[in-house]
Amino acid sequence: MTRQVFIQELEQLHNNVIKMGSIVEQSMNDTILALENIDVELAKKIIIRDDEIDLLEQNIERDCINIIAKQQPIASDLRKITSIMKIITDIERMADHCADISEYIIDLNKKPKAKAPENLDKMVTAMKKMVIDTIDSFVTADLKKANNVIASDDEVDEYFNVIRDDLISMMQVNKDVIPQCVDYLMIIKYLERMADHATNIAEWITFIVTGDLVLS
Amino acid sequence: MTRQVFIQELEQLHNNVIKMGSIVEQSMNDTILALENIDVELAKKIIIRDDEIDLLEQNIERDCINIIAKQQPIASDLRKITSIMKIITDIERMADHCADISEYIIDLNKKPKAKAPENLDKMVTAMKKMVIDTIDSFVTADLKKANNVIASDDEVDEYFNVIRDDLISMMQVNKDVIPQCVDYLMIIKYLERMADHATNIAEWITFIVTGDLVLS
Repeated sequence: MTRQVFIQELEQLHNNVIKMGSIVEQSMNDTILALENIDVELAKKIIIRDDEIDLLEQNIERDCINIIAKQQPIASDLRKITSIMKIITDIERMADHCADISEYIIDLNKKPKAKAPENLDKMVTAMKKMVIDTIDSFVTADLKKANNVIASDDEVDEYFNVIRDDLISMMQVNKDVIPQCVDYLMIIKYLERMADHATNIAEWITFIVTGDLVLS
Repeated sequence: MTRQVFIQELEQLHNNVIKMGSIVEQSMNDTILALENIDVELAKKIIIRDDEIDLLEQNIERDCINIIAKQQPIASDLRKITSIMKIITDIERMADHCADISEYIIDLNKKPKAKAPENLDKMVTAMKKMVIDTIDSFVTADLKKANNVIASDDEVDEYFNVIRDDLISMMQVNKDVIPQCVDYLMIIKYLERMADHATNIAEWITFIVTGDLVLS
């Protein structure tokens, strides 16, 4: 009986993490859209949604502690629960960064329109794939997919460097766009951080599946 | 007997976190020094030390899981151990950011010398106080000090905004310093992140002491 309750609780926990992941995926998609169109109304919605995600994190955190206290899991079950406690922090940080980017979108809208840096769309696409793949690999405990996410982080870092250098050139050519370029610099920094969090989650998934703890 | 072993293990865990905190404090102090003097040799040492801190995090992480599995702690003991698992992530991220700043110091050294932005020293001082106070408040479970850390985060955020605006002005006045100013922009972003991690730790300390989970 107790074992059955435990399995149900673990499943519920797993599903709640997936639910939290889907909400953040929605925020990420909205952020990408808001960034493309400098859409202030959408940006505001993303900022409000961040509170919902914070609450979800706290609930899952409490559930994890309660399950450990009541069920006293060991070995792979315990590894899964403690990893979930780490994963939800990274998911929540991704949502934070969606809100951070949204603040910069609101700021950009107040300034004269400036061209978005080249390759921003490519960076966004690479980051988005990492986030989606990391959530997918959690759902199915897909080690191969998790490893691919970890390997993709360099690509996003490289886009960051390329776009940063482009922004420097843009600022050197036309000093009127410096404030907007600084906004974009911060935005690409947050995009890079989101990819880092996806990588962290992929490392925790590796730990859940294999027991190997290798944190970058 | 088991209880006695458990108490010893908890003490050992507590001390290992303090040890990890001291090493990061050392890295932070070195980073501040390296930043003041654009000291490349010191910056390189900080980057190497980051590996040591990663290893320490992994060891403490494993210790936490082993203690939970073997001792099956409940209530406040379990809360402390799970909080430590979160705290060491934040400590490790602070060390990462020391290494990130060090990379930018090495980069700055390759470029023509540029004046550091005004107020950078004040931002550094405010951030440093937060990091030291948060580690201190962990050592003695000092709730008041932890709350002060949380309250100080706004000050560091405000310095970030002021310095960012100064850097924008500096770039508008002299385009030759744009690459260096972009390095400083990234550096102040990492300083701000370090203050955020100190805040996170302070929130976990509050949770350890009171059981109230309020994550920002």
